[in-house]
Amino acid sequence: MNNDRIDNILELMEEASLDYFLISDPESIAYCTNYLNYPYERMYVFMISKHGDHKLFCNDLFYIDEDLDVDIVWHKDGDDAIQTIVDHMAFPNRIGIDKNWPSRFLLALMKKLPKAKFINASPCVDLVRMKKDLHEQVLMIEASRINDLAMQDVIDLCKEGLSEKEIAQKLPAIYIKYGADGNSFEPMIAFGKNGADPHHSNDNSHVKECDSIIIDMGCIYKGYCSDMTRTVFFGGITEKQIEVYELVKKANETAEKMIKPGVKLCDIDKCARDIINEGGYGKYFNHRLGHFIGRDVHEYGDVSASFDIEVEEGMIFSIEPGIYLPNEFGVRIEDLVLVTKDGCQVLNSYSKDIQII
Amino acid sequence: MNNDRIDNILELMEEASLDYFLISDPESIAYCTNYLNYPYERMYVFMISKHGDHKLFCNDLFYIDEDLDVDIVWHKDGDDAIQTIVDHMAFPNRIGIDKNWPSRFLLALMKKLPKAKFINASPCVDLVRMKKDLHEQVLMIEASRINDLAMQDVIDLCKEGLSEKEIAQKLPAIYIKYGADGNSFEPMIAFGKNGADPHHSNDNSHVKECDSIIIDMGCIYKGYCSDMTRTVFFGGITEKQIEVYELVKKANETAEKMIKPGVKLCDIDKCARDIINEGGYGKYFNHRLGHFIGRDVHEYGDVSASFDIEVEEGMIFSIEPGIYLPNEFGVRIEDLVLVTKDGCQVLNSYSKDIQII
Repeated sequence: MNNDRIDNILELMEEASLDYFLISDPESIAYCTNYLNYPYERMYVFMISKHGDHKLFCNDLFYIDEDLDVDIVWHKDGDDAIQTIVDHMAFPNRIGIDKNWPSRFLLALMKKLPKAKFINASPCVDLVRMKKDLHEQVLMIEASRINDLAMQDVIDLCKEGLSEKEIAQKLPAIYIKYGADGNSFEPMIAFGKNGADPHHSNDNSHVKECDSIIIDMGCIYKGYCSDMTRTVFFGGITEKQIEVYELVKKANETAEKMIKPGVKLCDIDKCARDIINEGGYGKYFNHRLGHFIGRDVHEYGDVSASFDIEVEEGMIFSIEPGIYLPNEFGVRIEDLVLVTKDGCQVLNSYSKDIQII
Repeated sequence: MNNDRIDNILELMEEASLDYFLISDPESIAYCTNYLNYPYERMYVFMISKHGDHKLFCNDLFYIDEDLDVDIVWHKDGDDAIQTIVDHMAFPNRIGIDKNWPSRFLLALMKKLPKAKFINASPCVDLVRMKKDLHEQVLMIEASRINDLAMQDVIDLCKEGLSEKEIAQKLPAIYIKYGADGNSFEPMIAFGKNGADPHHSNDNSHVKECDSIIIDMGCIYKGYCSDMTRTVFFGGITEKQIEVYELVKKANETAEKMIKPGVKLCDIDKCARDIINEGGYGKYFNHRLGHFIGRDVHEYGDVSASFDIEVEEGMIFSIEPGIYLPNEFGVRIEDLVLVTKDGCQVLNSYSKDIQII
């Protein structure tokens, strides 16, 4: 168990007057126990107790052969798994629930405890996970370093004339070559007009002269994610592409420069958005500036107008302004940043200069 | 919308006295609407109403440009999405909930409707999805035909001495070559001792003389899955491997022969299990005989001792007996079967004879 992390969660549970907190997110359970397991449809819950008697409820199909330093309560297929939780609670009054716990489990638990109050308590772990400890920082720095190396390989593949899908298929092997475990998400390789959809799905398109190429990709390294976007141009570049690219780059770099403890996330979003607005492309930047990342590629926390939390040392999030011009092209430039004592460390070093391949 | 399918669901809703059923599973929504969308953390619900005024609740980030023939109720990030559901209900008393609806949505809805009853209603759609209509059958027959072709390619790669991971990485491109869209699940390539774990994760192992090789793989074709396992041997085979292989093959083939409408799923499981028990390997066959499959690779419905439903025409499920000998080797042989009027059609034709490569 990682007692420092659990103590931080217990502090927030106390503020919310929770007796118990049932965590079901596999990554959050691993964050607390150092043990990652994907139970698919089976019940799998780590219960944090204000009394200190934390328990892991686990189906015996998932044999755990490590010394976890956590009490495991086993159940079998066919058992009443929810009852095993109830049996280990003392006078449960206010019970915190994981935001993503499947309703079938919650409905069954409510039936057994008709007088208890059930509260979505995920902020108690999500807020703690926003700040990375030193162990996590080291892994995420390495994940981004590998991503920088892999970006050059992907750009080289773009030169060879493969389709978007063909390039994307080769990425897991590239990551493995550099020591990572594979993709942290399905990469986006978007040629020309396809790049005008910020969430384009790779297709069989081939690159054409003067296409922009958006490459959004990330790997998993020892359980932690990277995520970076670069936009390059094939065979040539138009005046308009230069204008849009330089504007996005300025938004990216200016936003990164203002990051330090105490600055609000919404103000970082505003900084980048103002630059793109002033350049006349405001309506074509139609998503948040960034998201938090760690064990999951999208974690709780946005760099957006609706998130007014202050930045703290140890936070890691993306800065990814973009401009998407329907039927023309798109540009996005994304780095991960780690907030330091008095600024931030940009975790990606792959060049942001205009590159024509 | 697919009104035949929705009518079948409405029948089961009536038996359960439900006023509304909130479906959140993207594949179940696609089953009803012919439109597939993965909303990630956003709320996405198809509401089936006993009054007939079905609605799709959707975040406006997910632009739908097809003519869906369904009323869409849009919300934006920042809106109270749950309120949009409440606003479209008339006197909700008993509300069916998708088994996997994230708890945060259910808790928010319960707060707004304190007098309503909430019921896990997933069986109302899961039971309907167990029987495939003709359109689905055609797609699943093709998905399995492609899987048969791809199996030979994978066996050829095994001859070349690649590692488990390296072989697995090449499979998506093989499927695409044959017209499918990629894997339906992470394939398992297990050499020798690794095959003694029925859920082995591919690693960097290389094949050795007299290793068994378990290959469990499947593709997605136009939204529908295939899933097949074959076990072959590298360079030679031992007497014990022959004995175990023939026993598993007999269990597979005998179980498949007994399948026809009216036979109970649990009895099919028992038939295969009895054969392996009689052969003296009963304790090494430690999983259910099969599972249902369709839009998802694992759908509701088991071929197991705890499932006493009778087989009906149109059902498609797997028959996959296995024997897993710790520290030695494993054997599994799996086909998909489609229940016909008076028997079943085995959807996989790749040979089950002993093959030494």
